[in-house]
Amino acid sequence: MHTPPKSFGSGVSLRALTPGRVIIMAGSIVAGTGLYHLANFVMPFQPILNDSSNLDEPEPVVPEGLKHDVPLREFDSVYDIVPGLRKDMPMKEKMEILLKFYQTEIIQAVERADSSGKTFIVDEWSRGEGLGGGITRVFQDGRVFEKGGVNFSAIYGTLPRAAAQRMKANHKDLQIPEDGNLPFYVCGLSLVIHPQHYLAPSVHMNYRYFETRNPDGTPQAWWFGGGQDLSPMYYSEADAVHFHKLLKDVCDHHDPTFYQRFKKWADDYFLIKFRGEARGIGGIFFDDLNEKEAEAHFLFVADALSRFLPSYLPAVRRAYEPSNEPRPTPEDGKHWQGLRRGRYVEFNLAVDRGTSFGLQTPGSRVESILMTLPKYASWEYNYQPKPGSLEAKTVEVLKNPKDYV
Amino acid sequence: MHTPPKSFGSGVSLRALTPGRVIIMAGSIVAGTGLYHLANFVMPFQPILNDSSNLDEPEPVVPEGLKHDVPLREFDSVYDIVPGLRKDMPMKEKMEILLKFYQTEIIQAVERADSSGKTFIVDEWSRGEGLGGGITRVFQDGRVFEKGGVNFSAIYGTLPRAAAQRMKANHKDLQIPEDGNLPFYVCGLSLVIHPQHYLAPSVHMNYRYFETRNPDGTPQAWWFGGGQDLSPMYYSEADAVHFHKLLKDVCDHHDPTFYQRFKKWADDYFLIKFRGEARGIGGIFFDDLNEKEAEAHFLFVADALSRFLPSYLPAVRRAYEPSNEPRPTPEDGKHWQGLRRGRYVEFNLAVDRGTSFGLQTPGSRVESILMTLPKYASWEYNYQPKPGSLEAKTVEVLKNPKDYV
Repeated sequence: MHTPPKSFGSGVSLRALTPGRVIIMAGSIVAGTGLYHLANFVMPFQPILNDSSNLDEPEPVVPEGLKHDVPLREFDSVYDIVPGLRKDMPMKEKMEILLKFYQTEIIQAVERADSSGKTFIVDEWSRGEGLGGGITRVFQDGRVFEKGGVNFSAIYGTLPRAAAQRMKANHKDLQIPEDGNLPFYVCGLSLVIHPQHYLAPSVHMNYRYFETRNPDGTPQAWWFGGGQDLSPMYYSEADAVHFHKLLKDVCDHHDPTFYQRFKKWADDYFLIKFRGEARGIGGIFFDDLNEKEAEAHFLFVADALSRFLPSYLPAVRRAYEPSNEPRPTPEDGKHWQGLRRGRYVEFNLAVDRGTSFGLQTPGSRVESILMTLPKYASWEYNYQPKPGSLEAKTVEVLKNPKDYV
Repeated sequence: MHTPPKSFGSGVSLRALTPGRVIIMAGSIVAGTGLYHLANFVMPFQPILNDSSNLDEPEPVVPEGLKHDVPLREFDSVYDIVPGLRKDMPMKEKMEILLKFYQTEIIQAVERADSSGKTFIVDEWSRGEGLGGGITRVFQDGRVFEKGGVNFSAIYGTLPRAAAQRMKANHKDLQIPEDGNLPFYVCGLSLVIHPQHYLAPSVHMNYRYFETRNPDGTPQAWWFGGGQDLSPMYYSEADAVHFHKLLKDVCDHHDPTFYQRFKKWADDYFLIKFRGEARGIGGIFFDDLNEKEAEAHFLFVADALSRFLPSYLPAVRRAYEPSNEPRPTPEDGKHWQGLRRGRYVEFNLAVDRGTSFGLQTPGSRVESILMTLPKYASWEYNYQPKPGSLEAKTVEVLKNPKDYV
């Protein structure tokens, strides 16, 4: 399925993001140890992390696999990049080939960046004859990445009349059959990555293609949906600007209105409503997109996918690089990371319509849906960061979405 | 507010639950240490718990405060037990006095059992003049208890017509005013406790009283609701039988049909539907209860509250007692505890109608609602316990609710 990309656009160097900074100990790993003393016998079940009194702040070392540059491909080059993809294929086939290509490419890049030799596990699953299925790929307990999933799925199903009618509100060309059961097809690639380092942001990405179908099986109404968003534990202006800049470039290349519209949509969607706090610093989000020819939207999605890795990996690398900016102590960082992961869980389980829809769908694959949850999350009653702290500054940004580019 | 109970019923001794077993090292604390080696420098941000290679299994020591007996009071003795409570008071006042009395008593018992000197924090809050408020009391990072909350609230509000009409389905005597806005009053005590020890179960308890009110402020329709349920990380038949036995005793004293009906209701309610798995081993749950005189239901709730501590604390103590039954290693136990806590979070955030209703209510107090979440929770992709393991046996029970008494 996967072969190396045939052409590379102008590369963006990960190193170039921190001009003038020297990567210390590059190319060598210095072993260090920290001794942990179990608090004492009367608290044998206290999580060990709470006793970090002897935790030395680790010196930054960029893991070997994160040092590689991530190429920026040229726009509209998808037919050169993706083997086996041809313009004259049905959109359904083109999307499947595209999404599977990037599933493989992203997995390989994440494994390389992890620098541990650890690999994704593969779970192929089927919903039964003619109903579709998917390829769930999950990564756990790496050196750089704590947990991540990159899932492809392609599903055939039937929408009952009520659901079809709700959909028709946004899609006038959708025809509901007399028996009320509307056949549909949807394929998607969905990704979540939670790194180990508290300075490295979590990221979510999802692109999908939806078709309703005529009784003879031909496509009827169709639309694209998707987006990607970044969830830092500690706000970094550089990471946020870089992430949004690459998204804006992709959007602007395809439509001058996309970035503004889809950025706003992401700010609205990734909001933990009852907290009045965003899950992260946003990104783009869109749904029901069918305002141009399908091919134009396909090229947009393909370009967005091609820029996912360069939009994200530099932020992970930055966590390991030396910096003159103020940084939390490891114990504060790990503690805060747990609480921010708790917020991530709150969004996914209590707010996200996609997760809720999935969990309520009979026969849905729960483990594939909930692979978005972090390995560790934490809650403390009414935790308030100290005024002026790095944690407080992060919350300030999450409560007040702003423009980055 | 709180004075010692005036009369004691027949005491149930915590020790009596493990006949013939000797509590080793009772009355003395033996200091022990475990050395924790930070995996190595190339994995500086891996949670330390993952490296438990040097973790010695701790010898069981029952914390001093857990050794005390918990008395079982006589049924229908609430007017002897609770200072200031009189039979001729309006039900609203009686419930407030009752719930605040048990809030204080439970808090003192939990602090004592924790054996660390640590105390609950107090957060009194108001919804504004005439709208009610509450007393949130939260415990964190104790020796025996990881996190817990015991919240009292008493709220005055107005239900919009649609909500009032839904309510009328269960309450024929409910009168909706011409303007559609139905005044109501509700008070409740709600409790969640998550212990440190992976062998000790989490517990949830909630009792509440609801009134709609006439334009002149007099009570109109009324009902009681509530229940309590136990969520073990590792299934213990002894704990489950003891918990259900005490609940059945209370139920049977008040109505021969209560236990069977309310036990079934709990099994249905505390189900993580998309997992086909209960949150725990159940207990009792009821709502809209107004089939007898209000006084009869009040006495039932009072007796249930009086037996909460003796129904729960023995299970916490058992975790520290020596046992001839197979037990997990500390690393397996802590790991599994994290995953079970993840399930608890799934229920509370994605299933529980009470939490969902609370979070969606404008002006609700998010921190009081989410104090039910554990301090730590964990998720791993598609984790399957080894067949025949203690973990697998627990899941088996959670997937197949059974009768304990």
